Amino acid sequence: MNAKTALAAGCFFFGILIATHAGAQEAASEVQESAFVFNTLFMLIMGMVVMFMGAGFCMLQAGLVRSKNAATICLKTISLYSVAGMMVWLVGYNLIYGVEAGGLLGAFKIWSASDVDMAGASHSAHSDWFFQMVLVATTASIVSGALAERIKLWPFLVFTAILTGLIYPIQASWVWGGGYLNAEWGFSDFAGSTLVHATGGWAAIAGAIVLGPRIGKYDKGRVCPMPGSNLPLATLGAFILWLGWFGFNGGSQLASGSFQDAGAISKIFVNTNVAASAGVLTTLVLTQLIYKKADLTIVLTGAIGGLVSITAEPLAPAIWQAVIIGAFGGVLVTVAVPILDKFKIDDVVGAIPAHLICGIWGTMIVPWSKVEASIIGQLVGVVMIGGFVFVLSFLVWVALKFTVGIRASAGNELLGLDKAALGLEAYPEFAPG
Amino acid sequence: MNAKTALAAGCFFFGILIATHAGAQEAASEVQESAFVFNTLFMLIMGMVVMFMGAGFCMLQAGLVRSKNAATICLKTISLYSVAGMMVWLVGYNLIYGVEAGGLLGAFKIWSASDVDMAGASHSAHSDWFFQMVLVATTASIVSGALAERIKLWPFLVFTAILTGLIYPIQASWVWGGGYLNAEWGFSDFAGSTLVHATGGWAAIAGAIVLGPRIGKYDKGRVCPMPGSNLPLATLGAFILWLGWFGFNGGSQLASGSFQDAGAISKIFVNTNVAASAGVLTTLVLTQLIYKKADLTIVLTGAIGGLVSITAEPLAPAIWQAVIIGAFGGVLVTVAVPILDKFKIDDVVGAIPAHLICGIWGTMIVPWSKVEASIIGQLVGVVMIGGFVFVLSFLVWVALKFTVGIRASAGNELLGLDKAALGLEAYPEFAPG
Amino acid sequence: MNAKTALAAGCFFFGILIATHAGAQEAASEVQESAFVFNTLFMLIMGMVVMFMGAGFCMLQAGLVRSKNAATICLKTISLYSVAGMMVWLVGYNLIYGVEAGGLLGAFKIWSASDVDMAGASHSAHSDWFFQMVLVATTASIVSGALAERIKLWPFLVFTAILTGLIYPIQASWVWGGGYLNAEWGFSDFAGSTLVHATGGWAAIAGAIVLGPRIGKYDKGRVCPMPGSNLPLATLGAFILWLGWFGFNGGSQLASGSFQDAGAISKIFVNTNVAASAGVLTTLVLTQLIYKKADLTIVLTGAIGGLVSITAEPLAPAIWQAVIIGAFGGVLVTVAVPILDKFKIDDVVGAIPAHLICGIWGTMIVPWSKVEASIIGQLVGVVMIGGFVFVLSFLVWVALKFTVGIRASAGNELLGLDKAALGLEAYPEFAPG
Repeated sequence: MNAKTALAAGCFFFGILIATHAGAQEAASEVQESAFVFNTLFMLIMGMVVMFMGAGFCMLQAGLVRSKNAATICLKTISLYSVAGMMVWLVGYNLIYGVEAGGLLGAFKIWSASDVDMAGASHSAHSDWFFQMVLVATTASIVSGALAERIKLWPFLVFTAILTGLIYPIQASWVWGGGYLNAEWGFSDFAGSTLVHATGGWAAIAGAIVLGPRIGKYDKGRVCPMPGSNLPLATLGAFILWLGWFGFNGGSQLASGSFQDAGAISKIFVNTNVAASAGVLTTLVLTQLIYKKADLTIVLTGAIGGLVSITAEPLAPAIWQAVIIGAFGGVLVTVAVPILDKFKIDDVVGAIPAHLICGIWGTMIVPWSKVEASIIGQLVGVVMIGGFVFVLSFLVWVALKFTVGIRASAGNELLGLDKAALGLEAYPEFAPG
Repeated sequence: MNAKTALAAGCFFFGILIATHAGAQEAASEVQESAFVFNTLFMLIMGMVVMFMGAGFCMLQAGLVRSKNAATICLKTISLYSVAGMMVWLVGYNLIYGVEAGGLLGAFKIWSASDVDMAGASHSAHSDWFFQMVLVATTASIVSGALAERIKLWPFLVFTAILTGLIYPIQASWVWGGGYLNAEWGFSDFAGSTLVHATGGWAAIAGAIVLGPRIGKYDKGRVCPMPGSNLPLATLGAFILWLGWFGFNGGSQLASGSFQDAGAISKIFVNTNVAASAGVLTTLVLTQLIYKKADLTIVLTGAIGGLVSITAEPLAPAIWQAVIIGAFGGVLVTVAVPILDKFKIDDVVGAIPAHLICGIWGTMIVPWSKVEASIIGQLVGVVMIGGFVFVLSFLVWVALKFTVGIRASAGNELLGLDKAALGLEAYPEFAPG
Repeated sequence: MNAKTALAAGCFFFGILIATHAGAQEAASEVQESAFVFNTLFMLIMGMVVMFMGAGFCMLQAGLVRSKNAATICLKTISLYSVAGMMVWLVGYNLIYGVEAGGLLGAFKIWSASDVDMAGASHSAHSDWFFQMVLVATTASIVSGALAERIKLWPFLVFTAILTGLIYPIQASWVWGGGYLNAEWGFSDFAGSTLVHATGGWAAIAGAIVLGPRIGKYDKGRVCPMPGSNLPLATLGAFILWLGWFGFNGGSQLASGSFQDAGAISKIFVNTNVAASAGVLTTLVLTQLIYKKADLTIVLTGAIGGLVSITAEPLAPAIWQAVIIGAFGGVLVTVAVPILDKFKIDDVVGAIPAHLICGIWGTMIVPWSKVEASIIGQLVGVVMIGGFVFVLSFLVWVALKFTVGIRASAGNELLGLDKAALGLEAYPEFAPG
């Protein structure tokens, strides 16, 4: 080869390199854009389904309260969703994700995002905000059900603002924001058995204690059943929640644009579904055995209990493990309802068994299927978050009780909050039986 | 370099060119196919969610009418959706998109598409048809609520056919079809505050005027409240509509397969959500202040008012702007309800405040966030479309009134349309209270 | 060219080959990954919508039964969905897809999938399982409606287990599993007019015959109407089913990541929608003409009838053909309801007209639009599957009848299954009218 030939060949070689490299870069950028679009659209669609859980909670609770309080619970559920949306924007989001690695407290700052520099992101900032917001709203929805039929509207909404703007975001920052529970203890909670559901449950039980039971619920040492006024609506609510849970657990994968992510989401869907089914079947069989009657209300709670149980880790378990996790959630729900009554904690819709107790169960069972998680780490997370949420919620409820008051007057409670607070009735044309 | 070397090198160089070119072509076609799939599936999924708004309107209206007319409104909402589907196929779609650039009237032609030549398209023709069809059905759903409890079934469906086959398509062609309002005035209406919602509202107010109020609604100079018979259903309806609006506004981006589109859709979701939340909270506070009672019915209308307000431009506003736009929608709803009563315009479900008045507000506020829009351009669009839809609707209602008649007999109205027109009852087993 | 030059050139040439080949491989793998993600997410989202049909069936049936049985039907629908989920996992899935090509019986084996080797798959195994599971649940939901108000809970669930674990999977394996009906007869059923809907209908009619009509339904030779207790809920159910059908038919494309697939899904959406609309309008007009009153209940059944009719082939028909297919489904529904009454087959919710009769119609009309299908092949499939499902279901019902008994006692039936079997009421506070 003479020098000229070598030079020419070198040029070609260099040309090929450039061409290949440029092609690879372009291809890489296309792949990244494609993944960005997959992830973003996925988060939005899943978030949309989780948003609809607001309707699910609304229907479940409207169906399980007495008809004289059904319009009020409807007003509360649509209002709390709206309050949550504002608070996550004004405070919450930057509290969750503005925390330093291993830290305790995020930033107090209104959230905004330009979404200009998307080329480096896995998904759009706005889609992330949307998905977080609907999770936060879920937490607040749990509280409204437990305290129904006796709490005043406005103090409830004040608590909701504090819960969704401060309490939830601070504890969530410890795990999903990369704070100390995640960094130091390896606490693992995939989609929020503890962060979302037990948090809602702790806030609810604190409220139920401070608020006291409904008039007549525990008279003369007996538990007086106060059956739900519209069970088809309650069943619709449970179905909507079940639907929403695919978004809740599936969306928590936070990405969808690869073999691994799409496969993971699929497994999450299957595990989520069988856990709920197992919760239904366990409560169905148990209530038939214990009470000689299958109890629809407990079965609906069993579905939700199964769903909450699998939420801390819907990906790692084999299907048979997911079945057992959900089934035991159903057992817990069946057992917990009478125990709460023993302590005269009046939880109108079974929110505490389903969300708090199954939330703890779901979190503690994570190490069974996920090798990276440890029982100690899980326990620390459950205790730290539980303690933080319960104590802070309790203080807020007490503060509200001794300032503005949280409980409707006995007269208003007996009359029904719909007439008393809203001046209307949920079903004005139907005569009480 | 000798001749042979040069020849060989040339061959290689040519080879590289070919290889690179072929690769680039193939890559470009894959990118285009990927975008096509993203866009098409996105339109279908969003359209599916908008389709479900039919259920939302149905539940909202069935909950807000008196129970003696609840089955009839259910029949109307499912029938009007079906009529809309037929009319958009038979006439509407080609009226909207068959218009010449800057033109006034599209083509009268049954729609069909082969969808064979998809390689050049951004999304499939059938997905575009589907998304347009569900928007048109929304417009008709608005009318049914305002005129409930007194209009006859068949004349209503005749009007629906004219609205969805002619009135809506012609005005929509002026903007979304590229007709004169878009071409000459730069009128901007992203997802249809004017084209869908105000259009429905104008058709409704024309109908309400021609039809007159329900018997007993404005007796002896007093407004007689006729409370909704099933407020939990109405609340469910509002939640479903809120859900559907993500599809409505998000889907109107019409594309999803790029950084820009996916980011835009995300921002639309966030703005849509905060506008609705702001509408809820404004009406909640205002009704508490004005009436000393939080009013669930007005709050539900406030949610919808907030959503309609952000529909003309859900992308350009910053979040705080979207909050203000939605909040003011809530103010308008609260104020407009008593004003309509003053004029004895009987709008059973608050459709005119939410869809017409907030539709105008949302359209006029577009220039605040979108620099390309002008107040003049927006005003021209609002006036031209409003005038066209109102006058034409009014004429059609009058023509129907003086031919087949549009109003149920007084006897039938008092008996309830369910028994009179359908020969059944919505809730046959429940005694009136 | 001298030897050295040739050598160098050869090296470059080889280099280009390698580079091009590697690039092509990488690109091909990216394309395959992208298609995998599209297909998998599509199946999950569509499956999620089909899952929600459980709520649709629940609302439709709860609205169409008398209120004394509404809670029981709610319990049945959520329980049967759960049973189906377990059975498809434990037996069903491998019965469907474990069949040999052209075979008769699949494998008895609990299903599990590692989803590790996804690179060669079109979509994830778990997404496929999920989609199949929700289809199976649909079949069982059809049965619950027809037999409502008189069947005992536990025998019904035993039948459900056999239907979803054995009967459905075996017949589905003959077609979708690649068994003999597909291989030998070219039987074509795109989304399950026969496999899902007629199968549910055959199981229902067998049950209705063995179970007998409700007390008082056919007294003294007259048909005693037993109107649904909550028609707004029933209408909601129909809307949810309509929504779910986009997932049902669209998802049955089983792939979405190409021009062809996305275009096909779009056409399926349009055809599905117009068929349902046509079913609504036909029943609306026919009931008005025949009974002088538009009948909401029949119109809702007409929507479902239209949807079932287009399910066997939602892709091949032109829109006008889909309209005719759906419209004739509406005719069949209108005609079939009184005919069933003539035979004293008491189908509480019109499941047999909508799912069985329209299922047969939809299957037999496939060759009109799909050239690959033959009338003979379709007939063989309808008869073989119908015979298999009917005979087996009949035997199971009879076996259950003469062992545990399937019918509630007359006292319990008159009291209502809610009080008798569940010890509660669906609407405890509303006085019967």
